[in-house]
Amino acid sequence: MASNLPVSGARLWDSLMEFAAIGATAKGGCNRQTLTDLDSQARHLLRRRAEAAGATLSLDRVGNMVLTRPGRDPSRGAVAIGSHLDTQPTGGKFDGVLGVLAGLEILRALDEAGIETEAPVALVNWTNEEGARFSPPMMGSGAAMGIFPEAEVLAKTDAGGAVFGGELARIGWAGHADPAALQSLGAYFELHIEQGPQLEAAGLELGIVTHALAQHWFEVTCTGEEAHGGSRMAGRRDAMMAAAEAMAMIERTALDAGARATVGRLTVHPDSRNVVPGRVWFSLDTRHDHEDQLAALAATLRAEAAAISARRGVALDIADFWISPATPFDPALVAHLRAAAAARGIPYQEMPTAIGHDAVYVARNLPAVMIFVPCHGGISHNEAESITPRWAEAGLLVLADAVLAAAGVAKG
Amino acid sequence: MASNLPVSGARLWDSLMEFAAIGATAKGGCNRQTLTDLDSQARHLLRRRAEAAGATLSLDRVGNMVLTRPGRDPSRGAVAIGSHLDTQPTGGKFDGVLGVLAGLEILRALDEAGIETEAPVALVNWTNEEGARFSPPMMGSGAAMGIFPEAEVLAKTDAGGAVFGGELARIGWAGHADPAALQSLGAYFELHIEQGPQLEAAGLELGIVTHALAQHWFEVTCTGEEAHGGSRMAGRRDAMMAAAEAMAMIERTALDAGARATVGRLTVHPDSRNVVPGRVWFSLDTRHDHEDQLAALAATLRAEAAAISARRGVALDIADFWISPATPFDPALVAHLRAAAAARGIPYQEMPTAIGHDAVYVARNLPAVMIFVPCHGGISHNEAESITPRWAEAGLLVLADAVLAAAGVAKG
Repeated sequence: MASNLPVSGARLWDSLMEFAAIGATAKGGCNRQTLTDLDSQARHLLRRRAEAAGATLSLDRVGNMVLTRPGRDPSRGAVAIGSHLDTQPTGGKFDGVLGVLAGLEILRALDEAGIETEAPVALVNWTNEEGARFSPPMMGSGAAMGIFPEAEVLAKTDAGGAVFGGELARIGWAGHADPAALQSLGAYFELHIEQGPQLEAAGLELGIVTHALAQHWFEVTCTGEEAHGGSRMAGRRDAMMAAAEAMAMIERTALDAGARATVGRLTVHPDSRNVVPGRVWFSLDTRHDHEDQLAALAATLRAEAAAISARRGVALDIADFWISPATPFDPALVAHLRAAAAARGIPYQEMPTAIGHDAVYVARNLPAVMIFVPCHGGISHNEAESITPRWAEAGLLVLADAVLAAAGVAKG
Repeated sequence: MASNLPVSGARLWDSLMEFAAIGATAKGGCNRQTLTDLDSQARHLLRRRAEAAGATLSLDRVGNMVLTRPGRDPSRGAVAIGSHLDTQPTGGKFDGVLGVLAGLEILRALDEAGIETEAPVALVNWTNEEGARFSPPMMGSGAAMGIFPEAEVLAKTDAGGAVFGGELARIGWAGHADPAALQSLGAYFELHIEQGPQLEAAGLELGIVTHALAQHWFEVTCTGEEAHGGSRMAGRRDAMMAAAEAMAMIERTALDAGARATVGRLTVHPDSRNVVPGRVWFSLDTRHDHEDQLAALAATLRAEAAAISARRGVALDIADFWISPATPFDPALVAHLRAAAAARGIPYQEMPTAIGHDAVYVARNLPAVMIFVPCHGGISHNEAESITPRWAEAGLLVLADAVLAAAGVAKG
């Protein structure tokens, strides 16, 4: 049965503004990239605040911070709340930080109310969720959940040649704990801004996230033959026009399949105004609620591309680049969120996340779930990213009650 | 009435190989860019050979060389044969050089046969036809024909900052003649490789070029809205998919209109795999035999683009970049070529040039015409560019007889 934890939306907002000052940009955003001095500063502040609320820090070898408040039953895996403090170079004040500071507010409220939970409650700050300075994204949760080898993560370099492991040590946040120990958490909750327009458009302050979309990324290479721009069109093997037809086919096919398809990058060879391109390369990102339907889409795209290729004499190679399975979130945790939202009287919609989050990696190993709150215009990864205090509070209230329900209140 | 001038195809081929040695590349091509020491070396060789055949050099202020053999009637404008000795950085042995050395062969044959022509006969080597080192192309003929101001040409700089006028003086080929004096030539013939596959595909050794296509180049900018690759497709304003539909429309519309359309360059913003592009820019090169039909094509493209734009909420701006009118070649000179080809029994086709040549600029001011001979696979601007001695000879024979007909043989 859900209890109401006396969390403070106002104090959460104050925390958000306090952390936003660390790396604040002139345009009102935040530039606090992973493993920089500003990242370290934010980590110290988080540690001080959480320790003041009775939590104890454990730091692992890739820099993931776990601040744990003990429960009555130390044999139970901690109920964790997490997200990330790092930002994009021209990031906003809420992406990631909201989830961490909502967790901090819950630790504080538990401490002030003197509530003893059955399971421990933990706050997690994952290293390098953004993937802006060191690629790929979600490296800390990926290393913890066995998706990336730890040694590979530590050896990554940024554009200037700085090494991840070296930078982690330099800023003083290389710990000794085994990242894999996080696989024994009991449950994981993550509150995040939606980074899309749906909630705001629907007039809702809350989304309960039931699953992550399956993703299949490709690289498409169209190989025809260069020709002079003055040559007749009849005999051409024009890689650009083949690419255009392929993109139109992809859009139509993806729409029909209820999928999402994006061509975000494209290069042309030889890249001259009066030369018919001999080669065009483009990236393709496809996503779908259902893994099997995404696989069917890939098969359809390949068949349609073969037909275009045969008709035009332009080779169309569709190579796999990255595949991420559809990830269901935990039904019991979803049920806790539904109950909490109902008890607080906050309307919500259930929705997938189409975007990668630490929770998606965590969900491969243990019960996990996410909550979304709207952000204005769906704008994110942008200094203009903004939310209202009321939206932040809606997420906090439902998160707090569901965490309490999952952790259980010890009988006094 | 056409006479047969005793030109030698074998000697022309020897000349081609002799000049190909100046700037020869390891892959069998030629790198003899304009206003380099190698260009100067080729110019000196041309001058020696032409003077030995009784011609006199006039050099103008942009470096155009005119080697004139006097006629019986000095009041008549010279019948000129011309092309260019400069090459692309990875150019071949025939592009341009063939036309110059065919002219040299004609001067030699006239000299050896002791033929007195009515009009003078001149050989022209235009400066910087290629536009590879100094842009734009066809600078020498453009300056002579009043298309580019002379001062502008002299002030052009290459990628290394070297100035056209300075380089011209440095290699010793800055003359004193007024380039505009070339507007008083009586007629102009240019033999060139086709740089396209049509003649070879048709099994022909000769093309009589009746006109230059009209060209209209555009820059197209598609402006939509960036969105996350995870967002639903329904509400997107995807600049890339709008560009794809626009390109497919352009291809279809150009084919229907009997035009030629090429999208040779394309850039994407922000150029990230999982971001729906907010802006796509591409170049568009359109050509047609008829200027009015090319103008009609532009109007159709703009109307169709407006429909795509309205449907997608993506702005499509089609801006003019460069327009070149359709240029007819001189009917009397075309008739001389037809008669010469018929007399020699060489089958030919009449065709346009879809590519810019010095003759196209010259034709704006005086009677001009071109002859094409095939090149293997239509390959040009490439070290692999190749022709057969027989093809070179076919062009030479018809050129020689037509020049003689145009200049007139003085009655002994």
